[in-house]
Amino acid sequence: MDFHKYPKEYDVIVIGAGHAGCEASLAPARMGLKTLTLTVSLDHVAFMPCNPSLGGPGKSHIVREIDALGGEMARNMDETMIQIRMLNTSKGPAVHGLRGQSDKDEYHKRMKQVLEQEDNIDLKQQIAEDIIVEDGEVKGVVTKTGIFFPGKKVVLTTGTFLKGRIIIGEAKFNAGPNQQYPANKLSGSLKELGINLRRFKTGTPPRVSKKSMDFSKMEPQPGEEGLSFSFESDPLTGEQAMCYLTYTSEETHKIISDNKMRTPLFSGVIDGVGPRYCPSIEDKVVRFPDKGRHQLFIEPEGLGTDEYYVSGLSTSLPYDVQIEMARTVPGLENVEIMRPGYAIEYDCVDPEELKLDLELKKVKGLYTAGQINGSSGYEEAAGQGLIAGINAALSLQDKEPLILKRSQAYIGVLIDDLVTKGTPEPYRIMTSRAEYRLLLRQDNADQRLTPLGRKIGLVSDQRYNNYQEKMEGVKKALNYLRADENQVNPTKEVRARLEELGSGNLSKPVSLEKLLRRPEISYPDLEFFADDLPEIKKDVQEQVEIQVKYKGYIERQQAQVEQFRKMEEKTIPEELDYNQLDNLRLEAREKLNKIRPLSIGQASRISGVSPADISALMIYLEQYNRTKKEEQSGE
Amino acid sequence: MDFHKYPKEYDVIVIGAGHAGCEASLAPARMGLKTLTLTVSLDHVAFMPCNPSLGGPGKSHIVREIDALGGEMARNMDETMIQIRMLNTSKGPAVHGLRGQSDKDEYHKRMKQVLEQEDNIDLKQQIAEDIIVEDGEVKGVVTKTGIFFPGKKVVLTTGTFLKGRIIIGEAKFNAGPNQQYPANKLSGSLKELGINLRRFKTGTPPRVSKKSMDFSKMEPQPGEEGLSFSFESDPLTGEQAMCYLTYTSEETHKIISDNKMRTPLFSGVIDGVGPRYCPSIEDKVVRFPDKGRHQLFIEPEGLGTDEYYVSGLSTSLPYDVQIEMARTVPGLENVEIMRPGYAIEYDCVDPEELKLDLELKKVKGLYTAGQINGSSGYEEAAGQGLIAGINAALSLQDKEPLILKRSQAYIGVLIDDLVTKGTPEPYRIMTSRAEYRLLLRQDNADQRLTPLGRKIGLVSDQRYNNYQEKMEGVKKALNYLRADENQVNPTKEVRARLEELGSGNLSKPVSLEKLLRRPEISYPDLEFFADDLPEIKKDVQEQVEIQVKYKGYIERQQAQVEQFRKMEEKTIPEELDYNQLDNLRLEAREKLNKIRPLSIGQASRISGVSPADISALMIYLEQYNRTKKEEQSGE
Ligand SMILES: Cc1cc2nc3c(=O)[nH]c(=O)nc-3n(C[C@H](O)[C@H](O)[C@H](O)COP(=O)(O)OP(=O)(O)OC[C@H]3O[C@@H](n4cnc5c(N)ncnc54)[C@H](O)[C@@H]3O)c2cc1C
Ligand SMILES: Cc1cc2nc3c(=O)[nH]c(=O)nc-3n(C[C@H](O)[C@H](O)[C@H](O)COP(=O)(O)OP(=O)(O)OC[C@H]3O[C@@H](n4cnc5c(N)ncnc54)[C@H](O)[C@@H]3O)c2cc1C
Repeated sequence: MDFHKYPKEYDVIVIGAGHAGCEASLAPARMGLKTLTLTVSLDHVAFMPCNPSLGGPGKSHIVREIDALGGEMARNMDETMIQIRMLNTSKGPAVHGLRGQSDKDEYHKRMKQVLEQEDNIDLKQQIAEDIIVEDGEVKGVVTKTGIFFPGKKVVLTTGTFLKGRIIIGEAKFNAGPNQQYPANKLSGSLKELGINLRRFKTGTPPRVSKKSMDFSKMEPQPGEEGLSFSFESDPLTGEQAMCYLTYTSEETHKIISDNKMRTPLFSGVIDGVGPRYCPSIEDKVVRFPDKGRHQLFIEPEGLGTDEYYVSGLSTSLPYDVQIEMARTVPGLENVEIMRPGYAIEYDCVDPEELKLDLELKKVKGLYTAGQINGSSGYEEAAGQGLIAGINAALSLQDKEPLILKRSQAYIGVLIDDLVTKGTPEPYRIMTSRAEYRLLLRQDNADQRLTPLGRKIGLVSDQRYNNYQEKMEGVKKALNYLRADENQVNPTKEVRARLEELGSGNLSKPVSLEKLLRRPEISYPDLEFFADDLPEIKKDVQEQVEIQVKYKGYIERQQAQVEQFRKMEEKTIPEELDYNQLDNLRLEAREKLNKIRPLSIGQASRISGVSPADISALMIYLEQYNRTKKEEQSGE
Repeated sequence: MDFHKYPKEYDVIVIGAGHAGCEASLAPARMGLKTLTLTVSLDHVAFMPCNPSLGGPGKSHIVREIDALGGEMARNMDETMIQIRMLNTSKGPAVHGLRGQSDKDEYHKRMKQVLEQEDNIDLKQQIAEDIIVEDGEVKGVVTKTGIFFPGKKVVLTTGTFLKGRIIIGEAKFNAGPNQQYPANKLSGSLKELGINLRRFKTGTPPRVSKKSMDFSKMEPQPGEEGLSFSFESDPLTGEQAMCYLTYTSEETHKIISDNKMRTPLFSGVIDGVGPRYCPSIEDKVVRFPDKGRHQLFIEPEGLGTDEYYVSGLSTSLPYDVQIEMARTVPGLENVEIMRPGYAIEYDCVDPEELKLDLELKKVKGLYTAGQINGSSGYEEAAGQGLIAGINAALSLQDKEPLILKRSQAYIGVLIDDLVTKGTPEPYRIMTSRAEYRLLLRQDNADQRLTPLGRKIGLVSDQRYNNYQEKMEGVKKALNYLRADENQVNPTKEVRARLEELGSGNLSKPVSLEKLLRRPEISYPDLEFFADDLPEIKKDVQEQVEIQVKYKGYIERQQAQVEQFRKMEEKTIPEELDYNQLDNLRLEAREKLNKIRPLSIGQASRISGVSPADISALMIYLEQYNRTKKEEQSGE
């Protein structure tokens, strides 16, 4: 088939309109660049092939970071959300996590329309089959209909579509997620470019019919008032949708064990590597044989449908076994499965092929983001998509790439982990992966990243004003709390009030700040002790309280970051030839040659590179830099 | 792969949840039977792969007939409609046709939820691959996941999915409509059952992006107040969506001619037979070379999307030619195509394999309906689906099948045409296909069919009461208009008023009915001439006016119907051996043996059966019946 050139050259072409692809498209478009977005199905833009929800610890952090940088995910969620809760509230603010239920179809529809209405985006249903590269630089994309779309930068966000293969027990067939049309050719094009591919797999639980369930046998899981994802949204109001909690039983586990021979996971049918942190139910039963039951959350897929999602029952067991198994769960005794659970295998890129800006090392102008980079999860995908889109655009604008530090954002941790360490299985973000958890809270994502988003051009005037106002409010309140003239004296009334609040006694004057540091005292409680306590909004209050109550911890982490920053920022010249470093161990030399870290910090996180190797490298670098300086001054 | 039996036996299994499948599922379920509905994609239940609209002359008649019988299409449309108009109002009421624009995604979502909430329906995403038949009778269905679903009756409504193949210029690939997952195996199963298959094709125009069009260069096509499809709905209120009219140009036609070599239709790439009455633009340009331009309607695909449908530009030209061609249309100079137009080829059943109740002659319990029967169009599909679903249910209830006469309903015309004459190309209903157009109006579909729907059990008490009330109103009004005591005398005032109304003079007393027969006089105008003219609702008024104004024509058609009925009802015994009729011509004998008509009427409409053959058949039948009677009385 001959190719026909499309009558328009794009700045950026994004292959995929999933969670990564939508952010990767909106960012450059909003930065003023002509963007083309290709998708297998326009009926599934920003489609959620798995759970109908966003967030949870780590993931909600990323959603807020995307929001602060000017991405769309949080706003899209807030506009189409049907329930929201804050998880982990028994623990510190660092690991609090919003979790929202979305109306899956509305989520898709709104995001699609946002793209449709973005002036600089052309959104097209077209399957990309070939990436055109000349002299190591990307030139555009060829689609199944024989069109060559010329483009200066290309961002690949193909999710689980490349050579997608669905597995349900003994049944296996080529398909994208949810039985969509698969993309069978594109990964061949990557292979030809010398890119190292992996075969990963993931899975999803069955969807079930509302009328076939008995909710009276389950525990209702209602939503909470007053929450939203985006810093710019009003909290969700009105009646929220209901979720339900139920459990697997010994009987469930017995059915799984009895069908081991028919389980693809154990019978060798599945080649792909699955995510350890999102195991299938058959996996859980085998790995935790002593656990008598596992939690299952029954979640609505939307308001306009009676399909429900059975969170926790991910499986690739045969359909008949899925039915038998599901019917052992309290409330599901007569359940009808509308879509069976399945596993899906797909081709993805070894993320060690990437630079920290998400450009492939081997092909100039070709970026990858999302599940294709070996990650898993909508939020992880969107975070990468945003960064890849921004960096494609910055590169066209001849600007430095945006590389978020581990101390700056979960997105930074995510990308650094992927690119530097690679990943043997689908990677998911977790709060435990972040060294500086107390700095990377979801509540302060705006403080961490709004100025950056503003600089790039993704934060509107209005939004930036709101942000500055908020920061002003925090500052004013903190100043007030710290001011000597507002100190609280241990009068009789004060001591009585403190007792009422269940708080310890006071023997000498203290600042309002110190009083607020007490766990049992909230900002509004200070009203009693102050004459003209500034009235502040809820989000300002949250910041003031956290910054006061966790001051010690936060300062300690900031000091560590500073120390680390110094090491991190010792850059390594791109042209460095590791073969000349005799003191490196062989394994370290190979790894360093392959990954080519940009800094000592990044080098130190490469698995297989020891502290001794880092010392050797630092000594070499000092020497190298000295020589270089001398050469330059000699010129 | 072994099959595993599903732990539930269904009364009716419907393969497909398109327009035929949804009606075929709802009817038996509402008649109390356990029904299973299988679909390739739950995200595309009642999906409209082509235009985002229902109706037009002939088609709107069917929608109203479905409504009167207790089907869902009309109600679903009214609930999700964004514009409605009455077409053909310059002509008589027989060919008036409603045409409504739907919000495509909302249409799908509501219909899906209606199925989900119907107690007797289990709706599942499962691809059927095999139909299990034992001793000539259907036993159930096997799906891709290896499940055998036992069922007493099976209705096939697979649309364009069987061995679906999409063609866009030089690009061809296996896919269902809109690049959905194709069903590659099921038609093989039909072939094995000895069913004669056909290869048909159809096509659709490109979908384009709103922001890339200039509506100021087109003619706005607004909606009208006061209309709805269902007899039970309130008229659509509020602001309606806007459509636009534009035209192809000489330049458009030149591009098409210049690319003849790359046109699948002419280059031999397409094997399937397409619909003559819905031609592609390349077809139109070739067949009507003298026509300087063709109409194009630009219609929104919904309120939540910026995709628009280019009605009239159906094409399978290469994507690059589609772009070039579209950009020659006023208002589309910079248009961006979001989904290219395409042709799709698919396997379907030769409808001569069917009985008039839509059961296959060769397989007991196996029914087919919709596009699989060689028809085209959502309405045609839904009409057949309803009848097939009803007949599957009636058969389980040991009742006579529902076979609508040609004088009773467009659905009757449609099915009789298909089954009796077969069809060399995708069949579409048109008012010209109905002999008794004046009886088969869309406005009286309720009178024609509500009692039937009630008898079957698909018309609720509430609905039936409303219907009876309406009929009562019509009767009362007509009686009043006909009554001698309400005659109008030619007084001075009366004559003055008539002149005012632009109506001829009056010389002697006339009944109100006669006055109303005058074209320029409406029912409300009679107020002046009557003392206590019954106040009637709009729908009653419409009936009264039509029944009065068209009385002569209507009575004449009714007489013809009566005459025809006598012939039509001369039944032919099923066991008749046409080989024994020496006086039949060979071609007629073969046709009659193959089609096995149930009545002389049906026989007379078989192409290849001449009036002489019919005479021979009638003579033989009289003799046959006489002999039979004698035999019986002799016992
Ligand atoms: C079955 C399943 C179960 C999952 N379970 C979980 C889970 O339990 N927990 C969790 O966190 N995550 C889970 N995920 C992962 C999560 O859904 C993905 O990580 C996320 O959707 C990835 O977003 P993405 O943008 O990278 O890819 P996707 O959302 O898959 O989007 C890919 C996009 O690329 C397009 N595309 C692909 N190939 C082409 C091509 N050749 N040409 C044009 N367009 C193309 C597609 O049309 C689509 O728009 C699951 C995914 C699947 C499929
Ligand atoms: C490209 C295109 C253009 C068209 N253009 C026109 C036009 O211009 N004018 C016009 O009047 N009509 C047009 N039509 C026709 C109209 O769309 C169809 O006639 C109508 O949708 C038929 O309804 P249906 O229910 O028979 O099939 P569909 O609406 O196609 O539904 C088929 C159903 O069967 C399911 N299915 C198929 N195979 C299987 C299986 N093996 N297992 C389980 N489920 C299965 C599918 O998932 C789907 O739910 C066009 C159709 C297409 C595809």
